[in-house]
Amino acid sequence: MSNKGLLIVISGPSGAGKGTLCKALISRNNKLKLSVSCTTRRPRNGEVEGINYFFVEQEKFKDMIEKDELLEYAQVYDNYYGTPRFFVDKNLNEGFDVILEIDIQGALKIKEKYPEAVFIFILPPSMEELKNRIKKRGSETEESFLKRFKCAFQEINYISKYNYVVTNDVIEEAVKKLESIIIAEKCRVDRIKQSDIFIQLQEGCLNE
Amino acid sequence: MSNKGLLIVISGPSGAGKGTLCKALISRNNKLKLSVSCTTRRPRNGEVEGINYFFVEQEKFKDMIEKDELLEYAQVYDNYYGTPRFFVDKNLNEGFDVILEIDIQGALKIKEKYPEAVFIFILPPSMEELKNRIKKRGSETEESFLKRFKCAFQEINYISKYNYVVTNDVIEEAVKKLESIIIAEKCRVDRIKQSDIFIQLQEGCLNE
Repeated sequence: MSNKGLLIVISGPSGAGKGTLCKALISRNNKLKLSVSCTTRRPRNGEVEGINYFFVEQEKFKDMIEKDELLEYAQVYDNYYGTPRFFVDKNLNEGFDVILEIDIQGALKIKEKYPEAVFIFILPPSMEELKNRIKKRGSETEESFLKRFKCAFQEINYISKYNYVVTNDVIEEAVKKLESIIIAEKCRVDRIKQSDIFIQLQEGCLNE
Repeated sequence: MSNKGLLIVISGPSGAGKGTLCKALISRNNKLKLSVSCTTRRPRNGEVEGINYFFVEQEKFKDMIEKDELLEYAQVYDNYYGTPRFFVDKNLNEGFDVILEIDIQGALKIKEKYPEAVFIFILPPSMEELKNRIKKRGSETEESFLKRFKCAFQEINYISKYNYVVTNDVIEEAVKKLESIIIAEKCRVDRIKQSDIFIQLQEGCLNE
């Protein structure tokens, strides 16, 4: 029977705390891997190839697009960012669960290619807190703050495209919810073939 | 927004260990209540009204059937057993999650009335173990053993009617899976109204 890992897509508005949650989740679960993106931008100080990003030349990136080697990609100013298929597939096939922390547009593209992935939307605990968090990140002007806040608020309309919504109020609790979602998803009947159940009953264990 | 509890229906073949799991689950979660059945049989030594069963007269039971006060019921020899709607609804409305440990026929009837309930199928770890457990329960004859075993095996075909399947190999792990399913279900987008999310963002907490 299949021991393929789960693909877990985590999105949410800027300031919801996705990054913190993903880091906490990864640090506590050695069967989880965070997807590593490809980018055409130069490495910054301390960034490590294959850990922070796969750094590639623009030509190589365009070649990857053409060969459908990216699950999704986006251009931000002069640079490209994308999710390489090989990293995701390799880890899933080896039985690792793979976390993709990605914006909503990217998540929708992933859903076309991996409808069986688990889509989780992270919410800030309140609008007040969302405002504070966006402010802390240092939006320079009132205008840029308002733009970010409005954008975050609009994104919430996409929640219905997701399977789960987790409020990031107390980090410990939010991480526990994410861990529970992963455990529960592996027990879902629609992920398990009926034939596997009979094989299990002959041989061994089912939802590991 | 709604703070109604979840209805959790737990079934599985005789010998899968449903009762043990439900007890362990209840003892660790004070927001969980085990549904109490009505029965027309006499109380046995030590059985307490409202804890083990609600003991009612046959006439009263038939009256409850007629008034649709039972979510499901069955006749076993001369006695009736059923799930009273008032107990389930009262506890759900008070925000408790209610566990219904029930056979497959009963579970299918519950599904008609509460399609939003969570349906979990408990599996024994292996056929060998299932055989051992059925034997331990003291099937008197080889014939009665075979009948029980065949019945348990046939029931597995109903798994597709359930949302989750949990293998009861190591009890601790199975209980953790059940707890995770409950936590995860409360985060499911299709259980949360979009409007509640905006209210939460104004006021406070979502999936508690």
